[in-house]
Amino acid sequence: MSNTESTAASNSDQGRPYNTKATGEALKTVEAHQDDQVDITLFGSCFCPFVQRVWVMLEALEIPYKVSIVEVDPYKKPKELLELSPKGLVPALKLNNFTPPRALNESTVIMDYLEDLAESSTKKTALPLPFNPYARALARLAADQACRSLVPAFYRYLQAQDVEKQTTAGREFQDAIDVFIALLGRAENEILGPGRVWGLWVEGNTELGWADIMAAPWLFRAKVVLGHYRGYKFAPGDRVQRYLERVFEHPHFKATCSDEKLYYDSYERYAFNRPNTSQVATAINEGRALP
Amino acid sequence: MSNTESTAASNSDQGRPYNTKATGEALKTVEAHQDDQVDITLFGSCFCPFVQRVWVMLEALEIPYKVSIVEVDPYKKPKELLELSPKGLVPALKLNNFTPPRALNESTVIMDYLEDLAESSTKKTALPLPFNPYARALARLAADQACRSLVPAFYRYLQAQDVEKQTTAGREFQDAIDVFIALLGRAENEILGPGRVWGLWVEGNTELGWADIMAAPWLFRAKVVLGHYRGYKFAPGDRVQRYLERVFEHPHFKATCSDEKLYYDSYERYAFNRPNTSQVATAINEGRALP
Repeated sequence: MSNTESTAASNSDQGRPYNTKATGEALKTVEAHQDDQVDITLFGSCFCPFVQRVWVMLEALEIPYKVSIVEVDPYKKPKELLELSPKGLVPALKLNNFTPPRALNESTVIMDYLEDLAESSTKKTALPLPFNPYARALARLAADQACRSLVPAFYRYLQAQDVEKQTTAGREFQDAIDVFIALLGRAENEILGPGRVWGLWVEGNTELGWADIMAAPWLFRAKVVLGHYRGYKFAPGDRVQRYLERVFEHPHFKATCSDEKLYYDSYERYAFNRPNTSQVATAINEGRALP
Repeated sequence: MSNTESTAASNSDQGRPYNTKATGEALKTVEAHQDDQVDITLFGSCFCPFVQRVWVMLEALEIPYKVSIVEVDPYKKPKELLELSPKGLVPALKLNNFTPPRALNESTVIMDYLEDLAESSTKKTALPLPFNPYARALARLAADQACRSLVPAFYRYLQAQDVEKQTTAGREFQDAIDVFIALLGRAENEILGPGRVWGLWVEGNTELGWADIMAAPWLFRAKVVLGHYRGYKFAPGDRVQRYLERVFEHPHFKATCSDEKLYYDSYERYAFNRPNTSQVATAINEGRALP
């Protein structure tokens, strides 16, 4: 990735606030999804990768949905969100097809819910999870690595303040990416036979897979945010570069991306490890599992 | 739980080693599952709760399997295990129905794999995960809480060495149990209609549910190990007590339990936070996500 070379990172915290409104492609998608007569409302914030994971899934499954961007200030959680998500965390779904409407939170749980919904309606033939149990398991193994290793490594790297810690955290982040890529490669090598659907790692595939969607928001922020604030570049390797390009350029992913400036601004507080940045940032600082 | 009253915990580390052989009911189950002509071999250690989770699942699904208890010394990982599980962690499955045999690791990924296998063979009508997508999601929400909150809280409590830290960690562990129980109650309250299969929280149900199996090994060790080393007792509440009793006495769970002494011995190193206890213990000490 060379697009970060011309954007010098600031050396001091400019005190930029969170963005509260999507921009670019994401704004167009928000505006196109304001119909109240749908079964699913997604509550999210415009820069949150956990939200983006679910948002991409909704796009990939072609499920009708409304998107509602809510204020994410940790001290100003709107009542409607707290009713859906006990900790006030996004993403949360409001399921309007129940009376009264029901709620669902936790991005990975929502991912499984949407996959299950799509499997039971079977409108699409190629879903993010393949049908074969072992192929599913290998997709889940890569996704599990992304959730439990790559994601926390991203925040540790971004929140590290001194150079030595940044070096260590950067190496750990790169290791986590390497293991993730190796697991995509393992799925490619071990799954033979029909129904081989496992996402964009395999050249020629055109649909996002389960592990792609689980990891893509942080891979994208690695390019944009870690590139900007830490000078991070993906380790060379043509095949990895082409994979990332396919993910970032995929229409279902792009439809949920704001302009790069939004991410520079919203992540400044993480990059300078401001107090009260978010529940995620606090968990990283305290050495706890992410909320 | 009153069964720990007569067992005074030691005040000093007696240097007891890990057990490497199951005892009691678990030993009988190991001996009854030594047939090589089966599709699945479970590699595990006899005290590990991540292994027990998968083991209970195999029992609950009535899938034929072989169980192989392997040495768990962190510095003596057998080659056959390292071939199945890159970090040498148990549980690992060897899938003998592939040529050459394939491998699967990570307990939660294995849980999904076994559920998927059972769903595609449909020998049993009541599986740990219900069929309705929203009911499934609520089961997954409770299981997610167990994995990401209850499990690390268990180790933080057991490894805490001074009284003040133990008090704080004990309160956090109890909070995690309370939230887990509340999520079981939420599933009970929100799921109406046919196919309401979600485990033993609902009085009259006879089959272990997804969240029960995910959490049971640590609930059991809370009673046995935390009772012994920390004087822990579950908060009073008749319904919770009856739920726990149903889980601990369930034949599929009991079949995987060794005698209590095995757990006292194997967890002594955690209770005194010995160096090099395990990758899990080290992750807790370093404030990292569990491996």
